[in-house]
Amino acid sequence: MSTPSLLILAGDGIGPEVMAEVRRIIDWYGAKRDLPFDVSEGLVGGCSYDAHGTPLTDETMARAQEVDAVLLGAVGGPAYDNLDFSVKPERGLLRLRKEMDLYANLRPAQCFDALADFSSLKRDVVAGLDIMIVRELTSGIYFGEPRGIIQEGNERVGINTQRYTESEIERVARSAFELARRRGNKVCSMEKANVMESGVLWREVVQKIGDTEYPDVELSHMYADAGAMQLCRWPKQFDVIVTDNLFGDLLSDAAAMLTGSLGMLPSASLGAPMENGRPKALYEPVHGSAPDITGQGKANPIACILSFAMALRYSFDKGNEADRLEKAVEKVLADGLRTADLLGEDGATPVTTSEMGDAILAAL
Amino acid sequence: MSTPSLLILAGDGIGPEVMAEVRRIIDWYGAKRDLPFDVSEGLVGGCSYDAHGTPLTDETMARAQEVDAVLLGAVGGPAYDNLDFSVKPERGLLRLRKEMDLYANLRPAQCFDALADFSSLKRDVVAGLDIMIVRELTSGIYFGEPRGIIQEGNERVGINTQRYTESEIERVARSAFELARRRGNKVCSMEKANVMESGVLWREVVQKIGDTEYPDVELSHMYADAGAMQLCRWPKQFDVIVTDNLFGDLLSDAAAMLTGSLGMLPSASLGAPMENGRPKALYEPVHGSAPDITGQGKANPIACILSFAMALRYSFDKGNEADRLEKAVEKVLADGLRTADLLGEDGATPVTTSEMGDAILAAL
Ligand SMILES: CC(C)[C@H](C(=O)O)[C@@H](O)C(=O)O
Ligand SMILES: CC(C)[C@H](C(=O)O)[C@@H](O)C(=O)O
Repeated sequence: MSTPSLLILAGDGIGPEVMAEVRRIIDWYGAKRDLPFDVSEGLVGGCSYDAHGTPLTDETMARAQEVDAVLLGAVGGPAYDNLDFSVKPERGLLRLRKEMDLYANLRPAQCFDALADFSSLKRDVVAGLDIMIVRELTSGIYFGEPRGIIQEGNERVGINTQRYTESEIERVARSAFELARRRGNKVCSMEKANVMESGVLWREVVQKIGDTEYPDVELSHMYADAGAMQLCRWPKQFDVIVTDNLFGDLLSDAAAMLTGSLGMLPSASLGAPMENGRPKALYEPVHGSAPDITGQGKANPIACILSFAMALRYSFDKGNEADRLEKAVEKVLADGLRTADLLGEDGATPVTTSEMGDAILAAL
Repeated sequence: MSTPSLLILAGDGIGPEVMAEVRRIIDWYGAKRDLPFDVSEGLVGGCSYDAHGTPLTDETMARAQEVDAVLLGAVGGPAYDNLDFSVKPERGLLRLRKEMDLYANLRPAQCFDALADFSSLKRDVVAGLDIMIVRELTSGIYFGEPRGIIQEGNERVGINTQRYTESEIERVARSAFELARRRGNKVCSMEKANVMESGVLWREVVQKIGDTEYPDVELSHMYADAGAMQLCRWPKQFDVIVTDNLFGDLLSDAAAMLTGSLGMLPSASLGAPMENGRPKALYEPVHGSAPDITGQGKANPIACILSFAMALRYSFDKGNEADRLEKAVEKVLADGLRTADLLGEDGATPVTTSEMGDAILAAL
């Protein structure tokens, strides 16, 4: 096989800082584990708007379609808050998700044992927590038409449309069931079938895929509001959660925060297999661009590093190498290293972004 | 003024059990505080479907429009899960909200001191918590057209539409600002203006109302996913949160759970003033019909009782009497009385629904 290719889109805010540490890890894999990558770079988000007047150029979009995997840092920030909706930094990310057809967004919510006390939840509620949220990522209210702000009589109306086709629901349900088989064998599907017809169809289709293709996997359904509650009450009841684009956005952020590991959590966005058998894939940390701490060496590079570990696992079939990287992260945490986001107000001294990168490299 | 009128719709599941305790409290106010109410009763939800083939009859709807306030228990349950969408128990509740035009749903998320240890969050994160979520209740994706499940080519598509007009946003924003003035003077508005045009309009209109009519109230904006996170991290940063129907559904449930007081939390749904100056109003507990514990004397009547306290405050201008009732609830909790929902697995003996009612009456 030819050298696998990676496109790095570091983006805005702390994106470039955390990605710099990932670059060092990628280089280490090339030098020490005989796993070289063909790395190219591009712009996405506000930085692309600044350079080209658009949050994603056609050239970068085309490059993303060619490579084996995209690694993304973060997009957005207050500097771009007054931009027109159509050129907002987020549109670059959404275009990537949509045109690469990355329908399954995998968001593990894991509590790192060394950090359990840092959660706002009690230790026994979160210690050992390991759930996987599978969020539909290319449809729903993020993309449905009609949309926009229109004039109606003497006032304006803001409109968005949620649309889910059966096949869109089927494919993301399959992703969730497949993952469950390799984990705790349970799927909980969340929607609002009591108030939304799109939720009625969602529930019916997920149940059908479960009954016909995955009868061995335990399937349950929950209204998304009850799901939000249960995540806050006793998250360990869940194994894999599958839900739509918008609910997935809120629920996965809440779940990430509960673990106490927000600066720690990676994500994988996967599409259909390409010719070489690898899925279309984009990997990015769950956290945002964190403009308040940009450029101060305070950012935690772990979420982005673990996103690269997910790339090793899901794009390059290197589960062992992914384990190696995850273990290195666990080790530095167990050794007590903490970036600022992982410390309370109690005066302990944080390490910088690059010191954390150094330590992880040393632990590899 | 003539005797104020109340319509009681106890609904399904534990609705009738908890409402029975509220009835006793209403009677007490008539007998002991010279505050008689003209009480009538009706059906809503599954029980109405069973009796009349519809979750809400036109007669009951008309009665709800006439009275000074509606008290509702809960609707729904697995017995009705296979009903057609158009006659689901929830449609009765949604019809009441829509036709009474109850656009502002007030959901306090309060942590009762005696229960702080019962939360899944650490004590210092929740103790003393007192926030108010104002959820828009008559528009958004719950009601927008087009909606339904349609055939398109060879597959079905589930469709729902989010629509918000400027005036819909304005009026609920005003409700939030008014409440903030009587509380901590802060409003945080939540939407997804980074991905939804309806969120762009929402943010713009809330900002305009703040700037022009409530410059004295501190206003901030947050994306709803970040809001979900911040609620789980440090909820005390909030005073009043204003958000749309769907986000409000998830965020208020999560917030309620965080307080550890889920069986404790009331809500008020308010509309425009009627001829007598009182707002159209419906009061209901935040919890659902809890079919798993129905009929076992395990239900906690406090959320429904505190919903009546909200009625005293918001419909009948009896803030002092509302305080009295709330203090009685606090007292029985401080005395250690707990229904089953407020106890862990540690073997303490819960009181029954009616024992809790007895104790609150005695404390009044
Ligand atoms: C940045 C934004 C467009 C994005 C989303 O809403 O999907 C983010 O919140 C996420 O969860 O990846
Ligand atoms: C019962 C249901 C229709 C309702 C809703 O979704 O609004 C409930 O969850 C609520 O929050 O009041």
